Amino acid sequence: MSEPASILIDWGTTNFRAWLVAGGGGAVLDRREAPRGIMQVEPGGFPAALDEQVGAWRVAHPGVPVLMSGMVGSKQGWAEAPYASCPTGIDELARAVMPVPGEDGIHIVPGICYEAPDGRHDVMRGEEVQIFGSLAEGEEGRQVFCLPGTHSKWAAVEEGRVVWFATAMTGEVWSVMSEHSILGRLMEGGSLDDMDAFQQGFMLSEMPGGLLNHLFAVRAEGLFGEFAPSGLRSYLSGILIGHEARAMLPIARPAGQVTLIGRPDITDLYSSIITSLETATVSIPVAISTLHGLTHIREAMKNG
Amino acid sequence: MSEPASILIDWGTTNFRAWLVAGGGGAVLDRREAPRGIMQVEPGGFPAALDEQVGAWRVAHPGVPVLMSGMVGSKQGWAEAPYASCPTGIDELARAVMPVPGEDGIHIVPGICYEAPDGRHDVMRGEEVQIFGSLAEGEEGRQVFCLPGTHSKWAAVEEGRVVWFATAMTGEVWSVMSEHSILGRLMEGGSLDDMDAFQQGFMLSEMPGGLLNHLFAVRAEGLFGEFAPSGLRSYLSGILIGHEARAMLPIARPAGQVTLIGRPDITDLYSSIITSLETATVSIPVAISTLHGLTHIREAMKNG
Repeated sequence: MSEPASILIDWGTTNFRAWLVAGGGGAVLDRREAPRGIMQVEPGGFPAALDEQVGAWRVAHPGVPVLMSGMVGSKQGWAEAPYASCPTGIDELARAVMPVPGEDGIHIVPGICYEAPDGRHDVMRGEEVQIFGSLAEGEEGRQVFCLPGTHSKWAAVEEGRVVWFATAMTGEVWSVMSEHSILGRLMEGGSLDDMDAFQQGFMLSEMPGGLLNHLFAVRAEGLFGEFAPSGLRSYLSGILIGHEARAMLPIARPAGQVTLIGRPDITDLYSSIITSLETATVSIPVAISTLHGLTHIREAMKNG
Repeated sequence: MSEPASILIDWGTTNFRAWLVAGGGGAVLDRREAPRGIMQVEPGGFPAALDEQVGAWRVAHPGVPVLMSGMVGSKQGWAEAPYASCPTGIDELARAVMPVPGEDGIHIVPGICYEAPDGRHDVMRGEEVQIFGSLAEGEEGRQVFCLPGTHSKWAAVEEGRVVWFATAMTGEVWSVMSEHSILGRLMEGGSLDDMDAFQQGFMLSEMPGGLLNHLFAVRAEGLFGEFAPSGLRSYLSGILIGHEARAMLPIARPAGQVTLIGRPDITDLYSSIITSLETATVSIPVAISTLHGLTHIREAMKNG
């Protein structure tokens, strides 16, 4: 069963990841990763960009179906796939998979949307696949996930369906404030390894004053030399992740642990803060959860 | 008494404002305003920049003293004036006024710093002059001030001395997120006049999820067409000012009203939110408070 059965692709804002997988057990026969997210593709350039990355696989294995998830299905992507509404399970998502108009055998997994009781909306594209790829087998109770990133996603799954999720702009606020605000003036170095500064930021996040006040501490404590310039990014990171976790945990209401999905260096930071807030965590690398999620959706499409 | 007695200058990050005032009653004989903040001045270029703005006054009235406040006294300004520590009254501030090295008759009002019981610092440069220029005469009780801006300042004055203050980066977060984050993609128009969207943002600010989550609502509600693209800046503004006021009011603990000092279009927005939070406000235009404050400090220098 090592005959290629599908090409699975995670095509996000900044990155492109693809796997050539076999039928049956879904063994990975080949893989590709490139910094060719949808922001690097010109309008109309998606067929060529796909060829550039996995054209050789498609020539070698004619007719092998392609399944894509992520921002490739957004308005700024190849073709807009309407959001599936929560609660959504893997079967609903598989049924909502959309063929790319004018292409044979290329499909896009839609994102999902959540409408809160107060009428507010939230959306994700791509993370839902990672969540479905990280579900604990046979677990029917509430499972809570946190996917740190430019836009961090927190989600709750019950009986295999996403029943709630919410976004925090933590990563984007961190980078935008570091690069474009006065806070960047005193910063040196781009690393996030000053754990003392990170911890101080986390402690600040529970003080009165609110986030807009705490952000200014990065400047004030920088001016007064409380932290080395190389520690200010870590301090800002501790403040932001602290605010995110303190606001999200009471809404997410994990029954037990929080499952973190992301890059290990980032999930480690989240784990240290969530653990400090008396909640256990388990971490899953993002590439594994994506591959598993796309594989499950592919299977559900065949069975559905 | 219309003989020019001093040149008073508010020299901030982005703007330069100057008044030529008479002795005695302090009547304004002439005034100048230019977008020549310290960010527009090359290192070493301050004497020339001063000449360019008020050189004619100094030639016409040789020996008239110059008193400056604001970021001109910062590390990035003409000469660094060390912060005066809170609690600070107008007499302490007048005694801490610093002569500019190498110049005759040019002085800089220092900024002030506050060290919280938890050891955290906060700083301001220029706003302290506006506060001292807005004190209610004869009022000995606690007076609370809010100075909206790129970095909003909240301050409390007791018995004529600033006993507490804190900064919120509201204005800078608003502009940086509008210009450099994904939130700007859906925005159209730069105005802040959609009062319905502003009010919706304020209402969101009291919901669970925290500011990092509420920021994303600007994108999600933009995607779902809840607001016109022209209303998204107002929505963001309502969210941010709502968070600022909700976090600051309980710390500032106004005994009665909050005195707002700023541009009328901005203080109107703050007034609507602070009033909704059951606190009365009074507004004072920033130019008046600055002129009054510098005049008072000038008087205190003569008497001190």
